[in-house]
Amino acid sequence: MQVSGHSLIGSQAVSPNGAPIRAINPATSTQIDPDFGGGSANEVDRACALAEAAAVAFRSTSLQTRASFLETVASEIEALGDVLIERAMLESGLPRARLEGERGRTCGQLRLFASVVRSGEWLDVRIDPALPERQPLPRLDLRLQNIAVGPVAVFGASNFPLAFSVAGGDTASAFAAGCPVVVKAHSAHPGTSELVGRAVQAAVSKCALPEGVFSLLFGSGNDLGTALVKDPRIKAVGFTGSRSGGTALMKIAQARPQPIPVYAEMSSINPVFLFPDALQHRGTALAEAFVASLSMGAGQFCTNPGLVIAVRGAALDGFVEAAAQAVAKVGAQTMLSPGIHAAYADGVSALAGHAKVRQAGKGVAAEGACQCQATVFVTSASDFLSDEALQGEVFGAASLVVACEDWAEVTRVAQSLEGQLTATLLMDDGDLEKAAQLLPTLEEKAGRLLANSWPTGVEVCHAMVHGGPFPATSDARTTSVGSSAIQRFLRPVCYQNLPQALLPESLRDGNPSGVSRLVDGKRIAQA
Amino acid sequence: MQVSGHSLIGSQAVSPNGAPIRAINPATSTQIDPDFGGGSANEVDRACALAEAAAVAFRSTSLQTRASFLETVASEIEALGDVLIERAMLESGLPRARLEGERGRTCGQLRLFASVVRSGEWLDVRIDPALPERQPLPRLDLRLQNIAVGPVAVFGASNFPLAFSVAGGDTASAFAAGCPVVVKAHSAHPGTSELVGRAVQAAVSKCALPEGVFSLLFGSGNDLGTALVKDPRIKAVGFTGSRSGGTALMKIAQARPQPIPVYAEMSSINPVFLFPDALQHRGTALAEAFVASLSMGAGQFCTNPGLVIAVRGAALDGFVEAAAQAVAKVGAQTMLSPGIHAAYADGVSALAGHAKVRQAGKGVAAEGACQCQATVFVTSASDFLSDEALQGEVFGAASLVVACEDWAEVTRVAQSLEGQLTATLLMDDGDLEKAAQLLPTLEEKAGRLLANSWPTGVEVCHAMVHGGPFPATSDARTTSVGSSAIQRFLRPVCYQNLPQALLPESLRDGNPSGVSRLVDGKRIAQA
Repeated sequence: MQVSGHSLIGSQAVSPNGAPIRAINPATSTQIDPDFGGGSANEVDRACALAEAAAVAFRSTSLQTRASFLETVASEIEALGDVLIERAMLESGLPRARLEGERGRTCGQLRLFASVVRSGEWLDVRIDPALPERQPLPRLDLRLQNIAVGPVAVFGASNFPLAFSVAGGDTASAFAAGCPVVVKAHSAHPGTSELVGRAVQAAVSKCALPEGVFSLLFGSGNDLGTALVKDPRIKAVGFTGSRSGGTALMKIAQARPQPIPVYAEMSSINPVFLFPDALQHRGTALAEAFVASLSMGAGQFCTNPGLVIAVRGAALDGFVEAAAQAVAKVGAQTMLSPGIHAAYADGVSALAGHAKVRQAGKGVAAEGACQCQATVFVTSASDFLSDEALQGEVFGAASLVVACEDWAEVTRVAQSLEGQLTATLLMDDGDLEKAAQLLPTLEEKAGRLLANSWPTGVEVCHAMVHGGPFPATSDARTTSVGSSAIQRFLRPVCYQNLPQALLPESLRDGNPSGVSRLVDGKRIAQA
Repeated sequence: MQVSGHSLIGSQAVSPNGAPIRAINPATSTQIDPDFGGGSANEVDRACALAEAAAVAFRSTSLQTRASFLETVASEIEALGDVLIERAMLESGLPRARLEGERGRTCGQLRLFASVVRSGEWLDVRIDPALPERQPLPRLDLRLQNIAVGPVAVFGASNFPLAFSVAGGDTASAFAAGCPVVVKAHSAHPGTSELVGRAVQAAVSKCALPEGVFSLLFGSGNDLGTALVKDPRIKAVGFTGSRSGGTALMKIAQARPQPIPVYAEMSSINPVFLFPDALQHRGTALAEAFVASLSMGAGQFCTNPGLVIAVRGAALDGFVEAAAQAVAKVGAQTMLSPGIHAAYADGVSALAGHAKVRQAGKGVAAEGACQCQATVFVTSASDFLSDEALQGEVFGAASLVVACEDWAEVTRVAQSLEGQLTATLLMDDGDLEKAAQLLPTLEEKAGRLLANSWPTGVEVCHAMVHGGPFPATSDARTTSVGSSAIQRFLRPVCYQNLPQALLPESLRDGNPSGVSRLVDGKRIAQA
């Protein structure tokens, strides 16, 4: 399989003639062949027409068929072999081990969703049997299940060129729900996107699904993405990226004649609370673990610990000093793209030049393009609370330690925060009471609360929430990682008094699909 | 208990001095005492401050406590006795039997949500236990449950002065989720609203809950509602009413610094499909049942059958003739308010005067204010498809029969429809194949599909979906009737590696709450 520069529309490979996209190797700032012709409204129209044409057939596939399709996508990605890893290394600057791990995560995620589809929990089957003798009025037979919302637009993320891109979490969960997907590739890794897109295309064909189940489009600027979200055949949007990008898509989606949900995972600084006993007893060890989490992958994670909050004093001074020593040993790492590096450099410069911020430590400097030097800053809680500029996300390995006068001020800082993906409690047994008091505030601020662990490294499982109140995401009711992500692309339909022959299989008498059901409000576990 | 004209803010009864609201008896067009002083930004601020102050305590109540509270609200409403029914009759023009039935539905709904709270299914508990030996990385303990989103603004509906008003479905489901509620009363039934509000206030006090769990505000015009939806302490909105009102609230909510979900149930014409065999074999009986459904409650139901679609011919002519005869016997009924009556009269006049529409039959005329004469119109599918004016909702007992050239045109009409609450199939065994072909289209158009039953009379149960794609509602992923309605006011939170003492009870080892759980992806039914 070679990278050819094609967009994929259904079963075809096409070459739109819009402004071309070229990948850039961030480690060298050099361009990488080939050109990818940018798509236009024409390509959006073709992809959406095919997606709409495929929608009923795809959502009507059996649980088994859809699960097999997800597994086939995974094996087709694996079958790409080293070509995929090498192209992704070139385009993203990420090291081989990370990308091999991410490929494993991507395929594991597809296989998890295959098991989720088979289990049928996502159908949320509810049956209220007829009560013909009920007074004063009989009850008719009522049965509910979730169905797919229809074609979904997915915007690939830059920071996970495999796991949150063409066949990443959004696509996998939309496929699992039974939704055709039209992907807008991220322009930072077009070749990686095409390779994975070819794998998905092959899986669609092998599984004899309608070609419109998947298309992959390229486009620089915002026109193609805007056209995609505006298209009336698109029924939901998955996006991982910047706050400005996500809120722009939210506005477009809301302004449609038929508004649609946008699931945008956007911006989070992931506060870490250092509790007094933990800080006292193991400040140095915490500082070292903090720097390890902060600098992993050049800090290019949505859950990077960008904020550390504690009460000022000798213990915190020791923590900052240990963090400074640890960060001084962190080697420079190539960032994902020139744009991301420039934004990181700007963010770090702004903090370094801020009158109320002290730079506590900095990583090893490096020559070369797009290098990230990890940095730790310190400020006071009063300055943090009075200046919004200190509360924004700096995407990359930068973190701000906020020193509070007392624990009451720690609480005020927590209350002042915007919505977050995560909030972390580093605590010992003696901190339990304080933690219990802070917890309700943190529950309202974040989608995931962690004790004595680090927010980076998001487990793909059933209990994961990678979400949280705005601006962490556009929709705090959902997660974009883990099996609950499927719920974003479903809506319930109630069937009243339908003959058995017209009912979806999961709702028929005798439970032929073997799924768990809520019957008259009582849970009947799966067979 | 007497109607005093007070707003209720927490445990207080207050008299704001904004423009007063007075109820009007629609049967006589006369005003009813007393004045209700209109609230302003000041009352919104006080109610929201109390709601925010109550939020953590209320969502932290045990399942048992919250269930008891819902049951206490129901018994306090019943304890109001006939005063409530008489006031509601005066203000709504609805007959005693209907309002007594609606009171039963309202209290039954509160008790259903009590059982829902106790069952704990809504928590969606998911546990992925730690895997300390897993290679290459261990898994930490991860546990998920839903929590309440925070204070909810509820807008009372005019057409269910009890079941979708102050203590109606939106309030009951928000309470069940653990959300404090601030209600904006519908100005058409302020006295009914105050009485029910007093009952809720009494229940809050009896259950020793924080007073901010409930407030009830009055306001004419849009200012108070706008201020309520804009208030940063409000985290979700429930609304039942017009398309213009609902979309206005959606815009306000999206324009907030922190956007919030709006659950607006708005507009639906509830297409009924007459299949050929059924029409042939039992057209007259169907026509009579159709008119009974159409004219029930003066047609003032969201699920009123406003559209009937069939193939032209002698059988359809017979149906229309039988419907005309049936509707001619329908007595006039008082509508809910002068405003609703005026809108109905306008809608019926527009159809009656439309060059492409024939008036097939009309109910008994009546003297007096706000009287609804049921009306049946007929048009052709080509005219229906070419004129959007024929596709809007006329709220009240009016319906339009659309005569199609052939079954293919029936399908085109179905495909052309906007989102609906319901779609109904009147069919015989011989129609099964046609029904199976039409079903996927209808699944995409409506939240509830019915065979051989009528959309009016919405069962309050677990499998109900009273929802559907825009403009039927603002959010097709949800229902506003039935136990799933609780899901609108929840968001998931994941707890990673938390000590047992910090975990919510439903997530603790040993399952002390006895709720059903998804453990490692496997459903464990409730104890």
